Amino acid sequence: MIESVNATFENFVGQSQGLNEMAYQMVAHVLTLGYAVMLAALFYFILTIRTVAPKYRTSSVLSVVVMVSAFLLLFAQAGNWTSSFVFDAEKGKYFLGDGKDLFNNGYRYLNWLIDVPMLLFQILFVVSLTKSKPNSIRNQFWFSGAAMIITGYVGQYFEATNFTAYAIWGAISTVFFIHILILMKRVIKEGKEGIPASAQKTLNSIWVLFLISWMLYPGAYLMPHLAGIGVDGGLFNETGVVARQITYTIADVSSKVIYGVLLTVVARKLSVEEGYVEA
Amino acid sequence: MIESVNATFENFVGQSQGLNEMAYQMVAHVLTLGYAVMLAALFYFILTIRTVAPKYRTSSVLSVVVMVSAFLLLFAQAGNWTSSFVFDAEKGKYFLGDGKDLFNNGYRYLNWLIDVPMLLFQILFVVSLTKSKPNSIRNQFWFSGAAMIITGYVGQYFEATNFTAYAIWGAISTVFFIHILILMKRVIKEGKEGIPASAQKTLNSIWVLFLISWMLYPGAYLMPHLAGIGVDGGLFNETGVVARQITYTIADVSSKVIYGVLLTVVARKLSVEEGYVEA
Repeated sequence: MIESVNATFENFVGQSQGLNEMAYQMVAHVLTLGYAVMLAALFYFILTIRTVAPKYRTSSVLSVVVMVSAFLLLFAQAGNWTSSFVFDAEKGKYFLGDGKDLFNNGYRYLNWLIDVPMLLFQILFVVSLTKSKPNSIRNQFWFSGAAMIITGYVGQYFEATNFTAYAIWGAISTVFFIHILILMKRVIKEGKEGIPASAQKTLNSIWVLFLISWMLYPGAYLMPHLAGIGVDGGLFNETGVVARQITYTIADVSSKVIYGVLLTVVARKLSVEEGYVEA
Repeated sequence: MIESVNATFENFVGQSQGLNEMAYQMVAHVLTLGYAVMLAALFYFILTIRTVAPKYRTSSVLSVVVMVSAFLLLFAQAGNWTSSFVFDAEKGKYFLGDGKDLFNNGYRYLNWLIDVPMLLFQILFVVSLTKSKPNSIRNQFWFSGAAMIITGYVGQYFEATNFTAYAIWGAISTVFFIHILILMKRVIKEGKEGIPASAQKTLNSIWVLFLISWMLYPGAYLMPHLAGIGVDGGLFNETGVVARQITYTIADVSSKVIYGVLLTVVARKLSVEEGYVEA
């Protein structure tokens, strides 16, 4: 299919059929939206830290850690996009530039090496576990979180060139993902015991949000094949490139920002219940 | 071997055999991960400073100093990487770009001139020495820390061109390194006396972490020779380039961030023991 480039999806499309102006611009804008949301939310989490009792504040601190790292990585990813593709005035499309950098989603993956353990760890500072041991849950979260990311990271290098390697790495990553879902389900179930009904309700929302937003990532991993990579001249390839970056951005905002805000809401309800008053 | 370039390992590989897409990208991502962790942890240390009693806060302040300097230097290092290598579409690999900057790990070394004394100094604000004089330990830490870095910095210029100079400077650097290990072992041993068992346990973890993470640096220094520099066309050279940057990043995150977090944990346990309550 491609001889010279060990291409990822975006490079394959950008080299073979090119990206029309709308597709190229939408991705540039969506990536920029992504890092802007992270920096904005960073300030939100810093400024609301004292609205919860001291014991819950680590959750906000971890949200701040996630926002900083996500901001920087998405900023690098956006720069990677604009420095990889060049507008060809004759053909009226953007193509992979000669002597330019190639585009790669790997910045995201290595960002998740920070974010995923932090996001999973974070909820343990808000809920109280009734049966499970927090240390055991935390270690399992970290192990499976890191394993899920690293295997997915390796797999994405093969998305356009070696379907077998890509599918095997993806399948291994999915096993760890399922383990995380099972753990999170248990954490939320135990966390709901003995807390006010309105906080229980918010925890239910967190579970639904977690399930949906984290499922978007395997969807984005599979996108090249959902979009029919290799179908020459197919419009759907170009659309797939845009769809993948939009999917990533929705997933990032939901699983990092909205998740963190909802955890702050739960912590605030528990703080009020315990008689905490902000000074 | 190379006439025109006073080559370091990365430049040698990038000039002779080139780097495939995965190798180039992995280094770019790992370097980006590195500076993102530092900025994220900067916020962590600022936001958790009041969780420990005032007398322990200097440790957090020094972590902040280390994070700022490491962030900036790693940011420069990452920019150095992406601006040094250029994708050659014909050969399908990244090569040292014509008229571009050369890559050099020296940014890291000069960063350590700030970080190493700060990291060593930092623990003296958390532990209480029972026999040694803090001033004496501090001065020895600073002297040997600076000497270790400067000699290593000079040595790394010769890694690909003059094995004798490279080995001699490396050996001198190692002598200072061993002196630091002996001092740190003593500090931790004395620091464990008379403090709560759980704080002792964390200090033990700090010693193990210190030993392993600081040992990674000489490993990275030796990497070109572990990786078989000069073995023409050997895949292992390319692998060595990636392995070195991954090693550096793991070492940086462990010896700066996790070390700082564990010191905060010790300080928090001692603060609680002394009756400190966060407002």
